[in-house]
Amino acid sequence: MRYALILAGGSGSRMGSLTPKQFLKISGIPIIAWSMMTFQRMNEIVGIIIASPKDRFPEIKKIAEDYQITKLRAIATGGETRQISSYHALRAYEFHDDDIVLIHDAARPFVSEALARRCLNAAEESTAACAYIPVKDTIAEIENNLVRRTLDREILQSAQTPQVFRYSLIRDAHEYAITRGFQSASDDVTLVLLRGKPVYSVEGDYRNIKITTPEDMALAEYLAHALRGEQR
Amino acid sequence: MRYALILAGGSGSRMGSLTPKQFLKISGIPIIAWSMMTFQRMNEIVGIIIASPKDRFPEIKKIAEDYQITKLRAIATGGETRQISSYHALRAYEFHDDDIVLIHDAARPFVSEALARRCLNAAEESTAACAYIPVKDTIAEIENNLVRRTLDREILQSAQTPQVFRYSLIRDAHEYAITRGFQSASDDVTLVLLRGKPVYSVEGDYRNIKITTPEDMALAEYLAHALRGEQR
Repeated sequence: MRYALILAGGSGSRMGSLTPKQFLKISGIPIIAWSMMTFQRMNEIVGIIIASPKDRFPEIKKIAEDYQITKLRAIATGGETRQISSYHALRAYEFHDDDIVLIHDAARPFVSEALARRCLNAAEESTAACAYIPVKDTIAEIENNLVRRTLDREILQSAQTPQVFRYSLIRDAHEYAITRGFQSASDDVTLVLLRGKPVYSVEGDYRNIKITTPEDMALAEYLAHALRGEQR
Repeated sequence: MRYALILAGGSGSRMGSLTPKQFLKISGIPIIAWSMMTFQRMNEIVGIIIASPKDRFPEIKKIAEDYQITKLRAIATGGETRQISSYHALRAYEFHDDDIVLIHDAARPFVSEALARRCLNAAEESTAACAYIPVKDTIAEIENNLVRRTLDREILQSAQTPQVFRYSLIRDAHEYAITRGFQSASDDVTLVLLRGKPVYSVEGDYRNIKITTPEDMALAEYLAHALRGEQR
């Protein structure tokens, strides 16, 4: 069985807003509701689990009602870090070892069904897959305001979500990390690599943006408009 | 003396447009004209040199006329790579060794005077400085669709432009790279580091976006609107 886990634990400190960014609205629809609707529409996904700050549980339930998300199976408490939120979501439902879990950031509302499907298929063939896009900028290592080195852009890619795993693998990777005191992974792939297991890359999508800053909200409004045009 | 070098040599293949992106318009104004106007306004900059494809020289001259860019000193021929365009710009004018050159990508129209000034000041104190912003995504090394490793996001930053250098230093760094057959540096900082000289980081600006994809054009229109509001 395939499940979607949506991580909405963050506080959105870079947004300059008191409302966590995943509850801000784009085109009148809460950011988190966009990906909930996408996974609701996909027949191959049987259940949705969400990690959210505890005080937002009623809001999640309300959104599920408003947008007819009948697949919502559980809401997990968001943790101090993204990694802990992800781990809580993995423990919030009785998964089977051979289930496939698609982990997605709530702050990426425009994940397409096609992209989610590419990630699911790649993970089923291999046990772990993630969407990536080429980096646009030169990336440098900086310490104490001194540029240590610039990295070879040719082999660098930016991780998006979905990141998809066989349940037994990702659960084991999380527990391995925690027993070693590692709690601040910026994505789930990092944990699987730490465990020494392979992860395959899938071609991501420039429209699958992560909403972090107020500027991103403007771009999101534009994309929402463009996506609606295409669906007509 | 301080000069601004604007690199507009690129073809903009990711934009899906026949017009090189630096000549597309935002709010009715060609992208390259935005930074030309900013540097024209700054008293501390005495001259502007532009690198552009040869067949666009008349367009550059027309833009300089239309927007009263009286500081335009030379137009250099764009090269095969960004690095070569930059080198051509460095040789297109009779600079003195102790001049300060601010190198900027034409595809970043929203460089602010404040950011340019921060970079100029840092470079004058140290000989080399560049604007950086923290990376938002997890960056991974990928080879043959296999994720080799994810990098420690804490010390990674994305390079923007301006990148500012003492002329003698950047000219020497370019010639050092060329004699070693290195022609594909994605920015000028890389060459200075290759030469073994220090470069300092300056806090960049999320609004100083690089226009690469059609989605970026939408964000640019929004930012143009917001910036006008602030200047009123």
